[in-house]
Amino acid sequence: MIAQVAPPATLQGLADLVGGDVFGDPEVLIERVAPFETAGKGEITFVTQKKYLADLDRTKASAVIVPERISVAECNQLIYSNPYLAFARVQQYFHGKAPAAIGIQQGATIDPTAQLGEDISIYPGCYVGPGCTVGSGTILYPNVVLYQGVSVGQDCLLHAGSMVREHCRLGNRVVLQPGAIIGSDGFGFAPDGGKYEKIPQSGTVDIEDDVEIGACSCIDRAALGVTHIRRGCKIDNLVQVAHNVEVGEDTVMAAQVGIAGSTIIGRHCTFGGQAAAAGHIKIGENVTVAGRGGIASSVAGNQVLSGLPAMPHREWLKASMAFPRLPDMRRELHQLKNLVHELEQRLKEK
Amino acid sequence: MIAQVAPPATLQGLADLVGGDVFGDPEVLIERVAPFETAGKGEITFVTQKKYLADLDRTKASAVIVPERISVAECNQLIYSNPYLAFARVQQYFHGKAPAAIGIQQGATIDPTAQLGEDISIYPGCYVGPGCTVGSGTILYPNVVLYQGVSVGQDCLLHAGSMVREHCRLGNRVVLQPGAIIGSDGFGFAPDGGKYEKIPQSGTVDIEDDVEIGACSCIDRAALGVTHIRRGCKIDNLVQVAHNVEVGEDTVMAAQVGIAGSTIIGRHCTFGGQAAAAGHIKIGENVTVAGRGGIASSVAGNQVLSGLPAMPHREWLKASMAFPRLPDMRRELHQLKNLVHELEQRLKEK
Amino acid sequence: MIAQVAPPATLQGLADLVGGDVFGDPEVLIERVAPFETAGKGEITFVTQKKYLADLDRTKASAVIVPERISVAECNQLIYSNPYLAFARVQQYFHGKAPAAIGIQQGATIDPTAQLGEDISIYPGCYVGPGCTVGSGTILYPNVVLYQGVSVGQDCLLHAGSMVREHCRLGNRVVLQPGAIIGSDGFGFAPDGGKYEKIPQSGTVDIEDDVEIGACSCIDRAALGVTHIRRGCKIDNLVQVAHNVEVGEDTVMAAQVGIAGSTIIGRHCTFGGQAAAAGHIKIGENVTVAGRGGIASSVAGNQVLSGLPAMPHREWLKASMAFPRLPDMRRELHQLKNLVHELEQRLKEK
Repeated sequence: MIAQVAPPATLQGLADLVGGDVFGDPEVLIERVAPFETAGKGEITFVTQKKYLADLDRTKASAVIVPERISVAECNQLIYSNPYLAFARVQQYFHGKAPAAIGIQQGATIDPTAQLGEDISIYPGCYVGPGCTVGSGTILYPNVVLYQGVSVGQDCLLHAGSMVREHCRLGNRVVLQPGAIIGSDGFGFAPDGGKYEKIPQSGTVDIEDDVEIGACSCIDRAALGVTHIRRGCKIDNLVQVAHNVEVGEDTVMAAQVGIAGSTIIGRHCTFGGQAAAAGHIKIGENVTVAGRGGIASSVAGNQVLSGLPAMPHREWLKASMAFPRLPDMRRELHQLKNLVHELEQRLKEK
Repeated sequence: MIAQVAPPATLQGLADLVGGDVFGDPEVLIERVAPFETAGKGEITFVTQKKYLADLDRTKASAVIVPERISVAECNQLIYSNPYLAFARVQQYFHGKAPAAIGIQQGATIDPTAQLGEDISIYPGCYVGPGCTVGSGTILYPNVVLYQGVSVGQDCLLHAGSMVREHCRLGNRVVLQPGAIIGSDGFGFAPDGGKYEKIPQSGTVDIEDDVEIGACSCIDRAALGVTHIRRGCKIDNLVQVAHNVEVGEDTVMAAQVGIAGSTIIGRHCTFGGQAAAAGHIKIGENVTVAGRGGIASSVAGNQVLSGLPAMPHREWLKASMAFPRLPDMRRELHQLKNLVHELEQRLKEK
Repeated sequence: MIAQVAPPATLQGLADLVGGDVFGDPEVLIERVAPFETAGKGEITFVTQKKYLADLDRTKASAVIVPERISVAECNQLIYSNPYLAFARVQQYFHGKAPAAIGIQQGATIDPTAQLGEDISIYPGCYVGPGCTVGSGTILYPNVVLYQGVSVGQDCLLHAGSMVREHCRLGNRVVLQPGAIIGSDGFGFAPDGGKYEKIPQSGTVDIEDDVEIGACSCIDRAALGVTHIRRGCKIDNLVQVAHNVEVGEDTVMAAQVGIAGSTIIGRHCTFGGQAAAAGHIKIGENVTVAGRGGIASSVAGNQVLSGLPAMPHREWLKASMAFPRLPDMRRELHQLKNLVHELEQRLKEK
């Protein structure tokens, strides 16, 4: 378990923090959050699914976050309409605070032309190139590399071994998980007979505020212009975003998603794991692509899609359930054809 | 070819090593293992498939590992019931020994509170954070990062640029290939209207003895609690294991597999390349998921599955063979329908 | 936008560079390339699709690269039969030149037995092991790791955090994007009852001239022998190439492709994103595998394949279009069967 960065709080204190109400003892001390099954004294847990509400008194937790007051249960309750969000905020209280700034540690290389804000932490093995700017409160864990001209905002968290190539920009409160790569060359080669000539990728990447990029995910720089990751996007591990893509605000991509070049994705979309989108297409707002779904052409907003090429999720579910019946269907069709031809013959003979 | 770390051995010496028998000259000197097609003097090769046994005398190798004595062949033979395992052990003899410890090299940063065992190698650019422990005989290649409180067991091999985040634990003889990421944040965000709030991931990762994690594979830390990779698991490159997953002992995952959060996988399962499992499900023991298979809901043990959603492999094979016939089937069905309606009409008219 | 590395050129100068002709003002000064929609004064843009030729005079660019002289347009034109290739070459003029060599920077670790060519750049945090050779004009960005015995040719560009393991070889003009991993262990384990024993991977990787490997892509070393990436291959991000694979000259792989062990791929093949090939198969020359296609067994050259298992692309398109109709087909088949049995009954009764 990761060390706490905040002292214990009373249940009332946490309720005030999330804007919720207390049922039971407001003075009970909470030290941390724990899973429902294992939570004990000093721990708060949470219930998001109604089916678990009946089991509430099974818990030994000092308090439970619930969506409404559960009168049949005697445990202490922190009542908030969106318990999962309350859980997030209580976790933020206990674990979300950045550690104290440690300055620039020995073994880091900072170009003299780089401009650094206040309360910065730069661990050994980091490289901050010429003309970089790093905002106040930002942390660069060991072996982070910023090529020349990179701009990083305030209160960012760049984990170990994340790399940002030339002239890319990160907004405020951006998180890069370890090994995330920002600004690698887009995949652009011009065929010349059977060979390929490199098209230098002179564009950049712009990552707006409050974006998180997962471990070993790669956001390619534009061929010309800018690859955009808009405010609030959350991108999981091992995701590929190709050159000149634009990902709309608050869009979420689970692990191993791949987005091909120049595709424009609307705001508040959701991509399940291993989903993909072809290049040079437009995806509307609020589109959900199920895991492994593949969007092959432009699609309107406000729908749930599955399969390859993607179709409405319910259609895909039905077709997928029929798929294993395909050999039976083929045999039946064959038998039926024979039978019909036989009937046709008999009919002729009558 | 990688340099040998062990001197040549007699065929008898190698047979003793693997617990096998010799046919032919026990004193012939073997310097290395080589592929069947190219093996020559001083080299041993192996045959695992019976169909190649007839070709045995084509080889110029000094000896061949075979599953049983092949009396029709005159070449020297190392006889062992599981020739592939014998091959592994002979390779281990020639190449498996760790190089001599080199201590802590200049350019590595070791926190004074870290505890290091004996016979350790820590290359330049490594960072070992506060409160870490590193067991005897362990090697950290250049630019390995251990955040604070990480525990690494004995005789581990952490290749260049692998990263282990706060408070994660690695057992003994664990191998991380280059760029492997242990303990990146799980992908947890609570929706708050159209936006998302980060759920700090306060759990850890526990990697047990004899596990190998491939290059650029990512094992996320738990939201609360622990992500478990049990003893003997072998995980290939670019694999994603999400938060709170439990992977059972001796389970094998080929490259680019993705396992979503909180899923529990039994022991001795096998995942083919690019296979996936949805979150919050249970997968029994000895389940084999074929390449690109996708497990969408909990499944019992001891079966082979394919497709998305996964079905028994034989069913999938049949359905997949029928799939390209689908347009024909559709046309035939249409024609048959017309014919039947015509017959119906004719029947009415009689 | 990345800084220019070359001064402005006249349109005639660029035409001479690419071997094309000028229509309009040969003396107009061009400072950079820009997208068609945004290009303005001092910028050149390009048109590859005929449908845009009619819009040519909408541009405010100082010149446009076109495949043939467009007489209806009054803008300055650089005429070249392959405008995309001309674009590549103009981009190379402005952005393709390597920056001036900076020598070995403080904070890099170079083994005294390593041999370095002239005009080299080695940034802080790099590690060059015993017996390595690095050719003239090659750049190692921060935190690149070369294990012992690695050979890197001339004019290579190894981006930050790329890693090359023991005794692997890179030819001339090879580009590794950040985090690329060359020579990680192949995934080889021999079953021993329910457990697995590691097969040490003693082979290497050979990457020939003019190859580019994407960010976080992994090329595994051979078990025995060599994994080959032939001249001119272009491999995108997050690609897995397993041990003992051979990728033919000028073959292109988009992001997240996975190639299983010992497969041999012919020259000038193209793999779309997330495509895959099974192990131990042969793929002919000039094969195109569509995105997410999966080659399960050996295939001849000169074809376009899709689906899993892969089939001719046109067949796959038709079958995929029929797939959502599967539930309807099943219902119709059932209804038709009932109707036919009813007709059969009626026929009997007559």
